[in-house]
Amino acid sequence: MGVVVPFEDKGPRADIEGLVGLVAPDMQRVNAMILSRTGSEVTMIPEVANHLISSGGKRLRPMLTLATAVLAGYEGDGHIKLAAGVEFMHTATLLHDDVVDESDMRRGQVAARVKWGNEASVLVGDFLLGQAFRMMVEVGSLRALEILSSAAAVIAEGEVMQLAAAKNTETNEDEYLAIIRAKTAELFGAACEVGPVIGKRPKAEAAACRSYGMNLGIAFQLVDDALDYGGKAKALGKNVGDDFREGKITLPVVLSFRRGSDEERAFWRRTLEQGDIREGDLDQAVAVMRRHRALEDTIERARHYGAMARDALALFPESPMKRALLDTVEFCIARAH
Amino acid sequence: MGVVVPFEDKGPRADIEGLVGLVAPDMQRVNAMILSRTGSEVTMIPEVANHLISSGGKRLRPMLTLATAVLAGYEGDGHIKLAAGVEFMHTATLLHDDVVDESDMRRGQVAARVKWGNEASVLVGDFLLGQAFRMMVEVGSLRALEILSSAAAVIAEGEVMQLAAAKNTETNEDEYLAIIRAKTAELFGAACEVGPVIGKRPKAEAAACRSYGMNLGIAFQLVDDALDYGGKAKALGKNVGDDFREGKITLPVVLSFRRGSDEERAFWRRTLEQGDIREGDLDQAVAVMRRHRALEDTIERARHYGAMARDALALFPESPMKRALLDTVEFCIARAH
Repeated sequence: MGVVVPFEDKGPRADIEGLVGLVAPDMQRVNAMILSRTGSEVTMIPEVANHLISSGGKRLRPMLTLATAVLAGYEGDGHIKLAAGVEFMHTATLLHDDVVDESDMRRGQVAARVKWGNEASVLVGDFLLGQAFRMMVEVGSLRALEILSSAAAVIAEGEVMQLAAAKNTETNEDEYLAIIRAKTAELFGAACEVGPVIGKRPKAEAAACRSYGMNLGIAFQLVDDALDYGGKAKALGKNVGDDFREGKITLPVVLSFRRGSDEERAFWRRTLEQGDIREGDLDQAVAVMRRHRALEDTIERARHYGAMARDALALFPESPMKRALLDTVEFCIARAH
Repeated sequence: MGVVVPFEDKGPRADIEGLVGLVAPDMQRVNAMILSRTGSEVTMIPEVANHLISSGGKRLRPMLTLATAVLAGYEGDGHIKLAAGVEFMHTATLLHDDVVDESDMRRGQVAARVKWGNEASVLVGDFLLGQAFRMMVEVGSLRALEILSSAAAVIAEGEVMQLAAAKNTETNEDEYLAIIRAKTAELFGAACEVGPVIGKRPKAEAAACRSYGMNLGIAFQLVDDALDYGGKAKALGKNVGDDFREGKITLPVVLSFRRGSDEERAFWRRTLEQGDIREGDLDQAVAVMRRHRALEDTIERARHYGAMARDALALFPESPMKRALLDTVEFCIARAH
């Protein structure tokens, strides 16, 4: 049957299929858990929750919890509930974000807040957060609870930081990084850390997985921020220009503003600070970004964090799961083109 | 120095001073904990949190956690963090409620959402919820965590139930009770149950304290709902008529609607369902309620739950703390007149 191709290590491939395949049986259990824990006699709750949950997010965060638990040789059942809890925490954040950003779209469909109102989005988010903690408590690991409850506080802190920085074109790269570390990377880090923690692995392994998750999360958000100004955004169910219209200061803006002329800075102030956005301004924004290589350099920064994520896993021996986690880093970055 | 008055048990007095006095030293530590855990480098967080936290709520819920821990003979430190966590959960609920109800006032001052925006109220609420779990995890009691995380989910469920029942004048007393059990009584119950739980007391004592809290919570909410149509509401920093203007269906409305004439039902439908509220309608609503003794009977129902709360504590031997908890029930009911 064909030729035997000698195995050659070509380095990581931009492919999430390895991860998806390896966690598939566990992921089925997570999905069943998610479905059962959104159940409520209050019919609006499963309606709103499932609108978002079944709208085809990749479920990257729970997959990471499952994967790092396997990587750490964990053999119990606890990772299923922790993974479902992580996805609930993420979904709650999305519901609340939509209210905060007044978004009309989410994952390529109408946002829950538009369909059921801000009230339902706030309250169903709270319900999911409560259910997340309930599941996580059931697992019985105080250390995992510590990690995930801290993450919940830090994420909210990051969202408030972002709110305070909104429309402020003076935001610098460090400030921006502090925001995305808190609002995005922290949950990736926590999702990855709890795997080895419930596997009762040495501290160094838990720290390594956390570092992998944090850096992957930063890279992921950087790519997301670049995608908001074009690229393959549409294919990913995203609205190009959302961040621009909401006056969100992301790295492409930070870099363009710093590298720009006085005239360009006036443009950013008018559009993002004053919210005075006219026909053609989005195209103009993208043109300015291209002129200063702001999108390319945002992806370049993402590659830097991706490299740190990969190196964090160096202390684990080779295994199909390790390979899948390395490929996932490439996949997250390659979404950009 | 004067005459010795023979001690005579006159039954419980409507007085919260006993409770306040007995928990005062612990409460000072709770207040210090609350202050330190609202701290964040993100300045908007302590600003928003303290606006509400220092606006002079009674802190009844954390006092109950402290009191039941003492009642159960608990001698550790954990009740301080649990009590602070309970107050954070409550504050988070208030912040989110204001967004859901679009309230302009809270505790006699401008609501946080008016001053800092809905976004800040949603996110600072999330932050406080995260910090609450963080503190509660630090105490290290999985059973207490189970109780409090379940409460978080049930409270949100109750809020969604209330949202779904809003403006529906057909709501009956059972449905109304299910809502206030979830949105109000559950946290009172959980606040009281965790005391004996961390005191490692027998199940029956934890169940007794939970029952005390649940029934006290129901009575408390019933009185609150009656106060919204008058009484001493103003002295308590409440806006008379808020529920009416928001189309909230509370027991005084449920009773008036059921007992009313066709003409009166049309009045409730116009004002609460259709939100068509005209000059003089609030006075009219109160007049209809008085005609049907709806406010008096709401307080009568509160007395019933108050009696159940008192009886729940029967299995504890006499003590100053038990006496203070019994007096607290009377106090909550007597707020009505």
